[in-house]
Amino acid sequence: MRKVAIVGTGHTPFTFATEKTSIELFSEAAMDAINEAGLKSKDMQALYLGNCLGDFSEGQAMMQSYAANDIGAFHIPATRFEGACASSSLAVRDAFIWVASGFYDVVLVGGVERAASMGTSLATRTFAMFTDSHYEYPAGLTFPAMFAMLAHLYSHKYGVPLERLKEQMAQVSVQSHAYGMSNPKAQFHKEITKEDVLNGFMVTSPLQLLDCCPFSDGAAALVLVSEEKAKELTDKPVFITGIGQASSGRLSAQKDDLPRLRAREESAKQAYDLAGIKPSDVDLCELHDCFSIASLIAAESLGFFEFGKAGEAWEKGETKIGGKIPINVSGGLKAKGHPIGATGASQVSEIYHQLRGEAGERQVEGAKIGLTDTLGGDGVICTLIMEKGW
Amino acid sequence: MRKVAIVGTGHTPFTFATEKTSIELFSEAAMDAINEAGLKSKDMQALYLGNCLGDFSEGQAMMQSYAANDIGAFHIPATRFEGACASSSLAVRDAFIWVASGFYDVVLVGGVERAASMGTSLATRTFAMFTDSHYEYPAGLTFPAMFAMLAHLYSHKYGVPLERLKEQMAQVSVQSHAYGMSNPKAQFHKEITKEDVLNGFMVTSPLQLLDCCPFSDGAAALVLVSEEKAKELTDKPVFITGIGQASSGRLSAQKDDLPRLRAREESAKQAYDLAGIKPSDVDLCELHDCFSIASLIAAESLGFFEFGKAGEAWEKGETKIGGKIPINVSGGLKAKGHPIGATGASQVSEIYHQLRGEAGERQVEGAKIGLTDTLGGDGVICTLIMEKGW
Repeated sequence: MRKVAIVGTGHTPFTFATEKTSIELFSEAAMDAINEAGLKSKDMQALYLGNCLGDFSEGQAMMQSYAANDIGAFHIPATRFEGACASSSLAVRDAFIWVASGFYDVVLVGGVERAASMGTSLATRTFAMFTDSHYEYPAGLTFPAMFAMLAHLYSHKYGVPLERLKEQMAQVSVQSHAYGMSNPKAQFHKEITKEDVLNGFMVTSPLQLLDCCPFSDGAAALVLVSEEKAKELTDKPVFITGIGQASSGRLSAQKDDLPRLRAREESAKQAYDLAGIKPSDVDLCELHDCFSIASLIAAESLGFFEFGKAGEAWEKGETKIGGKIPINVSGGLKAKGHPIGATGASQVSEIYHQLRGEAGERQVEGAKIGLTDTLGGDGVICTLIMEKGW
Repeated sequence: MRKVAIVGTGHTPFTFATEKTSIELFSEAAMDAINEAGLKSKDMQALYLGNCLGDFSEGQAMMQSYAANDIGAFHIPATRFEGACASSSLAVRDAFIWVASGFYDVVLVGGVERAASMGTSLATRTFAMFTDSHYEYPAGLTFPAMFAMLAHLYSHKYGVPLERLKEQMAQVSVQSHAYGMSNPKAQFHKEITKEDVLNGFMVTSPLQLLDCCPFSDGAAALVLVSEEKAKELTDKPVFITGIGQASSGRLSAQKDDLPRLRAREESAKQAYDLAGIKPSDVDLCELHDCFSIASLIAAESLGFFEFGKAGEAWEKGETKIGGKIPINVSGGLKAKGHPIGATGASQVSEIYHQLRGEAGERQVEGAKIGLTDTLGGDGVICTLIMEKGW
């Protein structure tokens, strides 16, 4: 297996509803990535595209082919990945193997979504199809309900009283919004206080408005190349050194593990083992904070904190730049925004620029290893590890 | 790159509307494939699933995770591929690289759809999202309209008068229905005559009812393994020796090539080159006959007949068993049925059994090399070549 490098990224602003089509949004990100890599569209040998709701948001399924050909990458294989919020992380992992195997030298990967364009109510209802649609969604298990339930289980299992947990969760959102201030691509540039969170309206007890990430419009893209090709293009390649992916049955099938998601632990183990590192080696992490409670659960399962202790870590600043493990310094899904199919590629883009020292005000100094964690619905997890390659 | 073998297949009957869920249908096919391979669910290291309309047919997106865990393949990576009718061919091609690269030794791949359950009108309208939804579908370009237009272009370009072309197209359907009689998994077991086709009601001129394949419910699954693993499991492995995939822009962007689809020719070339064979080496072919005209176009672009001459070939019996190149002896999409996301895996399953001499009444004697061709919408093509491995 060959080493696989990231050599270019593109990232539209993550926004409220836009008038652009998904293909137009993705094309923007894709052309930026190709240009940043110093390549041309015709150099791309394949496209791997994460998209989740295109059929619903604008009646366009299978947009990958038109997207490839619209940017001038004529007739290349173009494949769509749908793994809910993890769609473009799956696309990155898959693109990795096509390059690592030696089959391709240069590929384009990314994701796009126009979730904000659907409106929050319709998007929430539609997105509930990414839970179990026969037994669980009809019982009321939309995603806010699911994560609210996990918060109750978390409180109970680890003995963190609910009012205390709400304060800890609030701190997650406060930190994300603080970092979002310095990310020009973020949807929200607005600092919030713990009181803002705790005084927000209740979405699904105990989750209040500012415990929840938005639905966003946006796209992100990456160019992946072989190590040999990377040498021609840059002195500062970032290598993908660990990949992991795992699945779960419907939530009721996970009841012995909850609020832990065993799939996340399996996926993370695969990635750590392949990279030959341990959690303490990771210098920064972008994880799936679709809801504030999701951040606590993820950070623990990734091995950064003891179970039941992540909330305290956030409160102590251990997840800030300079702390034990900076988490979501991009602003995360909460402040940067969450265009579902684009989120994984966006997380990887953040790690790429951090490892290259290009993250400006939110730079994690000296970062050499970064990890992304993306959760798709309640059934898919993808973990990616990137390392500074020079 | 390692050699990749198919060692097991599963195939539900392809049917009109069923009461089973997509996950139940796929589980049937998957368990049959695993059993046929002499393996257990826990041996599967990953799942690659083609599904196209699950979100619409039963409100279940991202079914791949639940499908994996429901059959007891707990926590394995499970990835959904959506490339319209080519969804599960893309899944097979992708599964191939994960085994060929050495990353996995044993994987499960397949597809499922409940297109019949949607009803033909709703399915046709919904499936039109797999064309260009901004410029072309609003102008009336559903798939029947698209292929009717290609028939007119074919008639004009190759100087085959429309009434003559209709007779040739009718022969395609007559042959498929004749072979469907001997496929117990086929949706239609009914012989038809040329007159039946020509006297059918007009769907979109010149395509009449029996020029069109049905929407079907069904699933198909395959177990792919490394060559080394195959040796433990069977004396009769079938190897995947050629893979190809290509994309097109929207139909208006293809106008210089139509009715030929350049993507098909690019995809076929990739597969032929990788396998190191030429069209005349192929002993049988399962190609994408969503409409009778599609068969003529495909057979020519795959290199089996001169452009404009495929209709005559069908009339002369060159596409029958014993002819130059037996095509769609399974009954094809026309008679076997077309559960969209399952079609590619079904085609591969047919080739597998043919190469192993297990196809019963419709056996192509002495077949050593088979090819599948799957067209997804107007934008995706996948070509797979399989060879007898003993």
